[in-house]
Amino acid sequence: MGSIFGRVLRAATFGESHGVGVGVVLEGVPAGLALEAETIQRDLDRRRPGTSALVSARQEPDRVEILSGVADGKTLGTPIALLVKNKDARSKDYSALAEAFRPGHADYTYFHKYGLPPQPGGGRASGRETVGRVAAGAVARALLATLGVSIQAYTVAVGSVKAEIIDPAFAESDPLRCADPDMDEAMAEQVKEARSQGDSVGGVVEVVARGVPAGLGDPVMDKLDGLLGGAMLSIGGVKGVEIGAGFAVAGRRGSANNDQMGESGFLSNNAGGILGGISSGQDIVLRLAIKPTPSIARPQRTQSLNGESREIEIKGRHDPCLCPRIAPVAEAMAALVLADAWLVQRAAERMPS
Amino acid sequence: MGSIFGRVLRAATFGESHGVGVGVVLEGVPAGLALEAETIQRDLDRRRPGTSALVSARQEPDRVEILSGVADGKTLGTPIALLVKNKDARSKDYSALAEAFRPGHADYTYFHKYGLPPQPGGGRASGRETVGRVAAGAVARALLATLGVSIQAYTVAVGSVKAEIIDPAFAESDPLRCADPDMDEAMAEQVKEARSQGDSVGGVVEVVARGVPAGLGDPVMDKLDGLLGGAMLSIGGVKGVEIGAGFAVAGRRGSANNDQMGESGFLSNNAGGILGGISSGQDIVLRLAIKPTPSIARPQRTQSLNGESREIEIKGRHDPCLCPRIAPVAEAMAALVLADAWLVQRAAERMPS
Amino acid sequence: MGSIFGRVLRAATFGESHGVGVGVVLEGVPAGLALEAETIQRDLDRRRPGTSALVSARQEPDRVEILSGVADGKTLGTPIALLVKNKDARSKDYSALAEAFRPGHADYTYFHKYGLPPQPGGGRASGRETVGRVAAGAVARALLATLGVSIQAYTVAVGSVKAEIIDPAFAESDPLRCADPDMDEAMAEQVKEARSQGDSVGGVVEVVARGVPAGLGDPVMDKLDGLLGGAMLSIGGVKGVEIGAGFAVAGRRGSANNDQMGESGFLSNNAGGILGGISSGQDIVLRLAIKPTPSIARPQRTQSLNGESREIEIKGRHDPCLCPRIAPVAEAMAALVLADAWLVQRAAERMPS
Amino acid sequence: MGSIFGRVLRAATFGESHGVGVGVVLEGVPAGLALEAETIQRDLDRRRPGTSALVSARQEPDRVEILSGVADGKTLGTPIALLVKNKDARSKDYSALAEAFRPGHADYTYFHKYGLPPQPGGGRASGRETVGRVAAGAVARALLATLGVSIQAYTVAVGSVKAEIIDPAFAESDPLRCADPDMDEAMAEQVKEARSQGDSVGGVVEVVARGVPAGLGDPVMDKLDGLLGGAMLSIGGVKGVEIGAGFAVAGRRGSANNDQMGESGFLSNNAGGILGGISSGQDIVLRLAIKPTPSIARPQRTQSLNGESREIEIKGRHDPCLCPRIAPVAEAMAALVLADAWLVQRAAERMPS
Repeated sequence: MGSIFGRVLRAATFGESHGVGVGVVLEGVPAGLALEAETIQRDLDRRRPGTSALVSARQEPDRVEILSGVADGKTLGTPIALLVKNKDARSKDYSALAEAFRPGHADYTYFHKYGLPPQPGGGRASGRETVGRVAAGAVARALLATLGVSIQAYTVAVGSVKAEIIDPAFAESDPLRCADPDMDEAMAEQVKEARSQGDSVGGVVEVVARGVPAGLGDPVMDKLDGLLGGAMLSIGGVKGVEIGAGFAVAGRRGSANNDQMGESGFLSNNAGGILGGISSGQDIVLRLAIKPTPSIARPQRTQSLNGESREIEIKGRHDPCLCPRIAPVAEAMAALVLADAWLVQRAAERMPS
Repeated sequence: MGSIFGRVLRAATFGESHGVGVGVVLEGVPAGLALEAETIQRDLDRRRPGTSALVSARQEPDRVEILSGVADGKTLGTPIALLVKNKDARSKDYSALAEAFRPGHADYTYFHKYGLPPQPGGGRASGRETVGRVAAGAVARALLATLGVSIQAYTVAVGSVKAEIIDPAFAESDPLRCADPDMDEAMAEQVKEARSQGDSVGGVVEVVARGVPAGLGDPVMDKLDGLLGGAMLSIGGVKGVEIGAGFAVAGRRGSANNDQMGESGFLSNNAGGILGGISSGQDIVLRLAIKPTPSIARPQRTQSLNGESREIEIKGRHDPCLCPRIAPVAEAMAALVLADAWLVQRAAERMPS
Repeated sequence: MGSIFGRVLRAATFGESHGVGVGVVLEGVPAGLALEAETIQRDLDRRRPGTSALVSARQEPDRVEILSGVADGKTLGTPIALLVKNKDARSKDYSALAEAFRPGHADYTYFHKYGLPPQPGGGRASGRETVGRVAAGAVARALLATLGVSIQAYTVAVGSVKAEIIDPAFAESDPLRCADPDMDEAMAEQVKEARSQGDSVGGVVEVVARGVPAGLGDPVMDKLDGLLGGAMLSIGGVKGVEIGAGFAVAGRRGSANNDQMGESGFLSNNAGGILGGISSGQDIVLRLAIKPTPSIARPQRTQSLNGESREIEIKGRHDPCLCPRIAPVAEAMAALVLADAWLVQRAAERMPS
Repeated sequence: MGSIFGRVLRAATFGESHGVGVGVVLEGVPAGLALEAETIQRDLDRRRPGTSALVSARQEPDRVEILSGVADGKTLGTPIALLVKNKDARSKDYSALAEAFRPGHADYTYFHKYGLPPQPGGGRASGRETVGRVAAGAVARALLATLGVSIQAYTVAVGSVKAEIIDPAFAESDPLRCADPDMDEAMAEQVKEARSQGDSVGGVVEVVARGVPAGLGDPVMDKLDGLLGGAMLSIGGVKGVEIGAGFAVAGRRGSANNDQMGESGFLSNNAGGILGGISSGQDIVLRLAIKPTPSIARPQRTQSLNGESREIEIKGRHDPCLCPRIAPVAEAMAALVLADAWLVQRAAERMPS
């Protein structure tokens, strides 16, 4: 279990970091949606490594092939299979690692789960797995676009530097996807400094979905908060998620936190666009805690596979800060959740009275 | 969709606040587990209202009936149906409310989803729905106990007061489930003050699972973080969840955040017991942001069902702080996720080489 | 696993033959459907034992209680929980049986699966479990009625006697649900003769769904044939299922079996209303092979739980022919499958071009 | 929905007849299973067209590529993605057909479901879709082989000719997979005669699973009969399925049909290896009614997409009898169901007392 996501719109991802390729089978997309490979490619390009000095230097063209489910630029209603071949997999960087557990990685837990030594490049636990998510998410996004829904994720904190203003357009052009034009240099400085010291740095990514109609999400187990939050926490490196006012609600009074309504609608959005697990029509706002990349060049204490204490130094090409790489993945997961919720709601539509 | 939770261990809850009753059908529990009604009753008693001056005065004995799946004190392997009848439902408290959306509640979104006016007591959106979760969770907890797993949730912040030490035994006896014996009075004061002002207050609940074996959880969509986090965010009133160091990781370097290993195991637990989505054998630690109860006596601006602006004052018996009520629910959801992950892992067990 | 049925419309049944009661939680029913307890009761009355000399004499009023999901005669969109208490459970009839496996029953296989001795009345393997199915099916039927879909099952063979004409109205009034007014006495004779010899007899039940719109069902794994056929074979005692011309197709040429089309539609219905797994708008026709009731009074050779050879004679009140009892269950399962397929199709509806 | 099959072992198939390729993502296979591409290829070769004068002349090498989930000849526990590229797709054979519904095909129903004209080669409704099933089934079969389970399907009837003896070894070498060495020529004659007349012929395929341990399958909705039968009926062209004695039970007495037990076990196998939905340890025996291939050269009456009456003649390379092509698919589906049931049973294993 574990590689199929969704209820009606279901994405089955596959692929290891250093295998033949990565991809996804997406079922549940209605027939007749206009879909070109270029639409998917655009989102894959947004998550691609090797695009700036602040991210991994691994060179992957990440060209998507549509294997099924689309003909003449339209979806057929059948499963859409998407494949991205792996090109630049340098297994030798990892050969020394296979004997010891990398701190902060899945090596130790996969060993206990599967009884296998760490796979080259992290195998299925690699960030490369997210290619399938982003490809599927691009299709979900195309579906949502027909409703007027748009989704964007951007970086609002790196290390000790926090964004104070949110400029979505700026974030799109910034290598760190920093949302604050006045803070992008300070954030970049945090990343460079960490990397120069053989280290990495954490941050916060915010995801906003605009134009979501009221009424999506289901009580009680499939609350939209739970589906979205669970989806975000399924992304490697995410250690926390908050919705709307998030952890700030802990210190508040109800009178301050409730979103009251005036004549033309809600007067605030502390709820982050979700009430009782169901979308309210306001912007849906999530924030994700991103841990510093566990792969660092500095020596660290660890154990070998047979339990002996040893020191490890991790080579390879790693992102010193995961935020700009995770942002497109967070968008994709949000798109998958919301598109699924919309399809589920079509099924749940109330009977005419 | 939305009322069935889990993969192999599946809980289907049912019931409205002011209907006949609430309950759950739980399937996937192996045969032969020792189970008495008293075990379930004990957990229900922990979430029951009317137990102190700091929680709702609604009087519900909440006696559980086992309708199926158990005979002679052992599970049969068949679905376990559990029913709790509603007793003290005062619908008249709500009659005036049916015409307007209560701020911070699901009234507005349910109206848009279902086309129905607010139901008495919140209907399915009521906290009373969690009776079914707690009853199912008690069974999951009994299953986990056979592995040596224990789960506890307690309050670590109320309003501006934060716990500094964690005393699990103290939390069990404290009306707010406050974990810090030196802070319980200050927390209680926050609650009383809010209530005296017709208001409510938020807080933070921490959940710890001890004794979880390494290897539970599944890459990539069913990471244990995602399953647990999604489960927590499916509880009404939870607006954020963090695992291990949580949002603190955003400001950290990788060298400080990675959990290194010495001869006898991990040297820290910033990961909160989960690496790559799979349990590491360390304590699993989650923290939940709990919003202030939306039902407050103070006048608030809202809209009527037909969109007219109006003021609302909410009567009824409400918890001025949700933390002590949510703690048992969080334990139940954690138990359901972990017991399910254990059963899934039994299926996934690697082939002998 | 195993007690939750469906994809969007999901029925979670529960209950053992001699426990507190049997029932179902049904989720996925849209809000706003008119639903009275009487509608459900009517279908339960059709499957009730003790109604004629040709069926079991067990007296069960089988009164349904709606525990949730309905208010003011309309569905709320939330899970509908339905409970039927057991009244006339004579466990003593079974006490002698607990030590040996009844031939043709689930005793042997349950023992190997669960490690438990046979439960009173068959426990979960009892035909009494179908109460939950019929109750859920009644709701599904009400949903389908809004589309103009009707479903009926009737007996077309008992032992060596076969119906030659189908008179649906007659079947409703016949104690065996025999569809042929000229054959009902001969069928009844087969049953009486078998019973008088301490034996039982098999038969064939036909299920017809009229008014099903074209386009329901999904390629490739969720073909409507597969969903319907699997549902029928999940009913105890059904050992075969055929659709349309069924096994007769084996001896045919394609030119004779294909349903050609004239100006006003199909010229025949060998396909039984399903082409490529999707409904064609014609009547959906299934036939079920029903085995003779395994509980017979005649002495039979069997084994005790510890493997010793012995003879068994089965007392208790059993149906000498299962056909009239299975017919309402088959209708219910067909209704659940078709209502689910309709809801799934609402989600799958093609995008406007 | 509709392209993901299974509960714990889940196969997500994809691909259209004349698209890039067909394949499957299979999740839930435990780590450490020995698996070579050759094992999968062997099963694909068994279903491949162009192998004799009695099947379609379409030339497809059907070489499988393992894209993920396997390394160093062992499964990783992660999703296994398998791809078979399409080579010999002659869309021009179909161009004339796109304007009218082929009798006996999915064209009419797909048009109503998806609003799309018939796709080249039948698109997703083509028998070519079964490549993904057979590939996944080969992996399931390898899993089952570790338990000592073997599965074989063979032809027991073609047109009016029925097998009288079953010689499994002979069936493997026969082009029609006929199980009776004395009847293979008569069966081949039926096929040749039909084809020479531009027609096709139906038949019956039997599937046997040997070595299945007692205790697999789940009451009540996931009875093994229902899962297997539903799986068989999800194969295009299958219009009926029976288990053990099947439709013959309709004419029997209980005393004749019950499988009594002697000192060394069951004395007969009318149940076909399944009691109460759970395997008994005996051979599991199913029989499938296979319709005559709907694609025939003879002129047939049909409608155009806009409802006009017209005549159609179907060109292309078609199997005059589907039995030998369906047999390997039936084996694959049986393997998927049984392997899944085994994994589910590992999760359900009773608690130690």
